[in-house]
Amino acid sequence: MKRIYFDNAATTETDEEVLQAMMPYLKENFGNASSNHFFGKTAKVLLEDARDTIAGFIGAESREIFFTSGGTESNNFALKGTAFRFLGTDKNHIIASSTEHLAVIDTLEYLKEKFDFNVTYVKPDSDGRVSAGTVRSYYTPHTFLVSVMHSNNETGIINDIKNITADANENSIYVHTDSVQSIGKTNFNVKDLNVNFAILSAHKIYGPKGISALYIKDKTQVDKYIHGGKQERDKRGGTENIAAIAGFKKAVELLNSRFEKDVSHYSSLKKNLAEGLKEHFGDAVIFNSAENENSLPNIVNISFDSDKLDYDGEMLLIQLDLKGIAVSGGSACTSGTHQPSHVLLELGRDRLTALGSLRISFGRKNTLGETDCFLKSLKEIVK
Amino acid sequence: MKRIYFDNAATTETDEEVLQAMMPYLKENFGNASSNHFFGKTAKVLLEDARDTIAGFIGAESREIFFTSGGTESNNFALKGTAFRFLGTDKNHIIASSTEHLAVIDTLEYLKEKFDFNVTYVKPDSDGRVSAGTVRSYYTPHTFLVSVMHSNNETGIINDIKNITADANENSIYVHTDSVQSIGKTNFNVKDLNVNFAILSAHKIYGPKGISALYIKDKTQVDKYIHGGKQERDKRGGTENIAAIAGFKKAVELLNSRFEKDVSHYSSLKKNLAEGLKEHFGDAVIFNSAENENSLPNIVNISFDSDKLDYDGEMLLIQLDLKGIAVSGGSACTSGTHQPSHVLLELGRDRLTALGSLRISFGRKNTLGETDCFLKSLKEIVK
Repeated sequence: MKRIYFDNAATTETDEEVLQAMMPYLKENFGNASSNHFFGKTAKVLLEDARDTIAGFIGAESREIFFTSGGTESNNFALKGTAFRFLGTDKNHIIASSTEHLAVIDTLEYLKEKFDFNVTYVKPDSDGRVSAGTVRSYYTPHTFLVSVMHSNNETGIINDIKNITADANENSIYVHTDSVQSIGKTNFNVKDLNVNFAILSAHKIYGPKGISALYIKDKTQVDKYIHGGKQERDKRGGTENIAAIAGFKKAVELLNSRFEKDVSHYSSLKKNLAEGLKEHFGDAVIFNSAENENSLPNIVNISFDSDKLDYDGEMLLIQLDLKGIAVSGGSACTSGTHQPSHVLLELGRDRLTALGSLRISFGRKNTLGETDCFLKSLKEIVK
Repeated sequence: MKRIYFDNAATTETDEEVLQAMMPYLKENFGNASSNHFFGKTAKVLLEDARDTIAGFIGAESREIFFTSGGTESNNFALKGTAFRFLGTDKNHIIASSTEHLAVIDTLEYLKEKFDFNVTYVKPDSDGRVSAGTVRSYYTPHTFLVSVMHSNNETGIINDIKNITADANENSIYVHTDSVQSIGKTNFNVKDLNVNFAILSAHKIYGPKGISALYIKDKTQVDKYIHGGKQERDKRGGTENIAAIAGFKKAVELLNSRFEKDVSHYSSLKKNLAEGLKEHFGDAVIFNSAENENSLPNIVNISFDSDKLDYDGEMLLIQLDLKGIAVSGGSACTSGTHQPSHVLLELGRDRLTALGSLRISFGRKNTLGETDCFLKSLKEIVK
């Protein structure tokens, strides 16, 4: 069966060039980057080259880039590292968007339950975006951190981080933005946004799993989160995952060289799919996204209006999978739980409608023919 | 230049079979193991197979194995996860060996400074081993955790974990043992030792970097450390590093099939090297190890008696490296700091002698000819 992979927001296929870049470090250049000999130094050179490449791509300085094992660890590092730095002071209040990824929400709930931090969750406005004004309205003298994702992993909605940061800076409040879905899909520059923390995850951009970069703005006060050796300028202990970092570097180089091409490709697929959905399902299909300029070009999230077409997303997933088409019901991290997406509930969907949702997320290899095939299959299933 | 790699305790070259086992998961089987479709399920099957293999090798149940990004994260998870579980109770005292890896010591120092835990460091006895009796003598009613490494990463000394655990169990105290250096070099069985936590690190056993398994004994109370999705039975969030896990599985299968052969090979290299060192340097060379049955077969750590031969380990390393021989002055995680090893100081070496130390650690590919070559080169340098 020729399969169609429309779940690129969950993870992407590693690019062949990325794999080639990794191979020497999976083979002969296997040294520990902390070792003070030929093998170690070979690894160390790659490590610092990769740091430069990644920093350059998001407008950061190399010293502001810290490698971790993934987007989830990066979120833990940014949030708990900051919270623990302020532990025991009068700074004990965190504001976050209610549509954050579980890596943020689960972390904040732990900080609340175990360490008595106060956490306020901000609902998005009617356009699905978290507004700077709403965030500001929750400031207290105890607020030290705001966490709002750059773009949502389920809906692709892009938040107004620049205005949120402008407000926060005036009040000496840090801003963390989980940006893993935005990288390579929309412009993203840390200096322009002026955030304290941002995240890249290699496996979302045709790189390997198990490697991420946390951007930490100069002078941001944050505790180390993985204690151990003095790696990453004493901010993250543990032997550096050099082969993965070599792949990450190549993945970012590829983004750099083909960003416009990628975005244009995703956009044409999205347009084709959206038009086909409207044509086949009329107003029974609800697009869970913001206006085009405020949403990612590669994610389409739809629900079926439960009054018009009562379909369970999980059943749709299974039937599409039987036809060889892989899509998602929400984020990969919550699938299998058969709970409606908290993101869609926050956007005002009712429970049944939210349960009938599908996320289609495009990658470089997808074609217009595949979106047509998806539409045909979906119509056969839904009838 | 044909190079000799004698730093296998820092990291090992990935085995060709391991690499082959990884390739399908770096290519077509790239799915996110949490995704509920064909690509995800393919990854999930591998994930659970690997868990079974690794559990079997150390005598654990599959449900007791949790994948993390490396030995350092596993140490953080075990120590902080337990400490945070007991936070705010009268259980606030931890006992650890003073010769632990930085991944343990740095973590415990953080728990002490930031969260007010009391930490007692236990010195090894005159034979270099941490004794159960000494550990027991520090118990208080507030002690909840003992952390003693199974074998030391610098000296290869194997501690008496079984007796430490027997005592601890009687007192309802958990035992964590950092076992990354022991796996594949000496018998290691969690049920036999009866520990609560133990660690495998793939890159120490000819597997890839960036993947580790933390053993957590059934019913052990421990907080999640990387919060996020429900992966790893809600104990460790983050997209599973499937390719690395596939390699880890193969690395453990190889250990399983060639354990005796490996140990015998390491032992012959160690014997040859020890005899040569004695022959060439007489009593100027000090072996920083326990009796043979209580030390790993693959690690030789020597110092030059500073009264007889005053050599700086860092300079020896550099000169050996120029001759194409890679050894270590201590652990890779502390190299470059030019501080004497805390492990050797705890063993009673003076500062100058400790600074003149070298760690030679063998791997599968090393040969007797290489140990001879090393001896010849060392003699040329030291004269």
